[in-house]
Amino acid sequence: MKTAIISTGDELLRGVVADTNAAWMAGRLFERGLRVERIEVVGDDMEALEAVFREAFSKYDLIFVGGGLGPTGDDMTAQAAARAADLPVDRRDDAVCSIRAAFERIGRPMHDVNLKQADLPRGCRIIFNEKGTAPGFVLAVPSGTAYFFPGVPAELEAMFLDIEQELPAVAEGARRRCVSCFGIGESDMQARLGGLSVRYPDLSFSYRASFPQNTLTLLGGDDERLDEAAEEVRKLLGHCVLEVGPHPVSVPEALGRALAERGMTAATAESCTGGLIAHSLTEHAGASAYLRGGIVAYDNAVKRSVLGVSGDDLLRYGAVSRPVVEQMARGVAQTLGADWGLATSGIAGPDGGTADKPVGLVHMAVWGPGGMRHKERIFGGMGRSRVKKISAWTTMWMALRALKNEET
Amino acid sequence: MKTAIISTGDELLRGVVADTNAAWMAGRLFERGLRVERIEVVGDDMEALEAVFREAFSKYDLIFVGGGLGPTGDDMTAQAAARAADLPVDRRDDAVCSIRAAFERIGRPMHDVNLKQADLPRGCRIIFNEKGTAPGFVLAVPSGTAYFFPGVPAELEAMFLDIEQELPAVAEGARRRCVSCFGIGESDMQARLGGLSVRYPDLSFSYRASFPQNTLTLLGGDDERLDEAAEEVRKLLGHCVLEVGPHPVSVPEALGRALAERGMTAATAESCTGGLIAHSLTEHAGASAYLRGGIVAYDNAVKRSVLGVSGDDLLRYGAVSRPVVEQMARGVAQTLGADWGLATSGIAGPDGGTADKPVGLVHMAVWGPGGMRHKERIFGGMGRSRVKKISAWTTMWMALRALKNEET
Repeated sequence: MKTAIISTGDELLRGVVADTNAAWMAGRLFERGLRVERIEVVGDDMEALEAVFREAFSKYDLIFVGGGLGPTGDDMTAQAAARAADLPVDRRDDAVCSIRAAFERIGRPMHDVNLKQADLPRGCRIIFNEKGTAPGFVLAVPSGTAYFFPGVPAELEAMFLDIEQELPAVAEGARRRCVSCFGIGESDMQARLGGLSVRYPDLSFSYRASFPQNTLTLLGGDDERLDEAAEEVRKLLGHCVLEVGPHPVSVPEALGRALAERGMTAATAESCTGGLIAHSLTEHAGASAYLRGGIVAYDNAVKRSVLGVSGDDLLRYGAVSRPVVEQMARGVAQTLGADWGLATSGIAGPDGGTADKPVGLVHMAVWGPGGMRHKERIFGGMGRSRVKKISAWTTMWMALRALKNEET
Repeated sequence: MKTAIISTGDELLRGVVADTNAAWMAGRLFERGLRVERIEVVGDDMEALEAVFREAFSKYDLIFVGGGLGPTGDDMTAQAAARAADLPVDRRDDAVCSIRAAFERIGRPMHDVNLKQADLPRGCRIIFNEKGTAPGFVLAVPSGTAYFFPGVPAELEAMFLDIEQELPAVAEGARRRCVSCFGIGESDMQARLGGLSVRYPDLSFSYRASFPQNTLTLLGGDDERLDEAAEEVRKLLGHCVLEVGPHPVSVPEALGRALAERGMTAATAESCTGGLIAHSLTEHAGASAYLRGGIVAYDNAVKRSVLGVSGDDLLRYGAVSRPVVEQMARGVAQTLGADWGLATSGIAGPDGGTADKPVGLVHMAVWGPGGMRHKERIFGGMGRSRVKKISAWTTMWMALRALKNEET
């Protein structure tokens, strides 16, 4: 099944927003084994729209269009689709009903301009919109079927789910193993995996970097082959492999799960990461079971008073030092009554670096049942936000390894 | 100037990630008055890539390509571009240098597989990559010039900025006023601004939602007209306007700046937001001047022991209540020695709600020189991550208003 997605809207071409609708639909389609061949973004321009539609209507079995069904002048998807399919436009009574119902739901008066949303290509089938005013529609085109949705994500998603069961499903397409990794670059991964893809020509190897993690996705084949290949990948990448499963897993997610499984708790003492560790852990439901809390100790006085870091050591070694970060990790676990303490202290930049302690220098410590673990790293030249993120991820990864009694 | 963006990568067609690179580049180009006509997303498929490049190389003056310059087998942008431009591929010494330098910077060994990144279309010009290993390149094509960047956002952005001054600029395109707002929806904004666009037909009104903020950008005209219109918008939207300026401004950024200007400090006591307030404030350089630190008080014991919240009140009113969140705000300011205390306590979900206290219920408090401010809201049905974000933003906005002695 040749499949394409077309997103319309000037705002997408102006960089005002990223095209999340296309990504969302592509993800749903992929789950059904339908591979999108092409995504196109076109502006609110009748000629350009008609040209893109005409090409798509002659080439693809399935076409999904998002946007341009609103009531204003720059909404011209229905008109352009009719032109491209050489069909007249009719005002549809069922569409008028759907629009009236929408205005009744939200208790607002309907304006005449909204009736424009009922002008649709002849012979199309309406998709009811429960979340907004613009009806969607399905149109038979020369090469297959085209589905049209409004561009508001909540509306598009609800309506897509409504028609989803009509779509063909190719079960094999969803077969995959995601090898989620941390602490290894894409090229290192490729170098270590060397000839593996030669021995598995039936599988596709796809690498994805999402800072600071990398994921290798194995696709195709059958379950046995996938498991076999995933096992070899696991051996070759060693402790950089976080997890193998149907979906990518992040370090905070893996740490949260490992804590929950063991019935253990953690607490965070963050200086340079500024709360990012606690924030990332609490993005996942159920965090209250394993996160006692955290201290963002930006100021040295807070490190002393709340975390019990020695004032002498702060003076002697400085805040960005091994003795201080270790005292922070132990201090926060004790103060907040947690099994594990995670701590960071570093210079996120862009200012504050010295010859001895450059921007990007970070000390990280994890304290717990197995004792203390410490790491010192220089995350140079990547900018404040990334230094925070890689420091937070490294610390959580250290905790995960410690929890599993594995070396770091 | 006919301009197009091409993004490559199977992960974009599988819905793994949204195409933020294209949006980012489109935004920068728009700043220069260059309007992107088309964005295309193609998978890692040699034939498809070659076909898309061949069409683009005959049609557009400026072509920007992101992705597919990595060392792995599914990276085939350079090869496909060479084919589409009917050029041979050479191993480039300057590119080899650039790759070697990258590995020296990060202190990792270079593998032979990385040299593939130096195989580029004959006659192209290298764009040095300071953040990663893959060099970019610029290629003269029949219809104009094509720029190729790696797909890692930080690398693409840095390299785009490097070549940006080479691009033509259409000055009028960059003239604008961004009205950054908080606490008002897009349709309410449009309703309140009603006929304003009719009285300013020379300006374009462009709305952008970036949860939980909205920005109205006024474009075109001259500075006088823009200032006049921006002033009217400010009056009509009242205290929902955060700032009017050349760029959108976020609530944490505005709060940080307001604190710095007054030489004041803040501290955070976060329950349901889990560290997000502290994290957002510390994303901006110079945060150490105004953020003393924060307490993530996920567990009630932490609320008692570290923040001094009354155990009786926790029992009587529950953690998600006005007395508790107010004690948290005052407690953290006093404990960490800050002028201002910001506190949140709520039920982020998806579990933990009751009939009395549903998922999405959040109490927020700000304590400071002007006394205590409190808000109770039910942020229903938006999901855990969004409840965290809108609660964090609302609390920071309350602090910003308090700081300016304005009502909330």
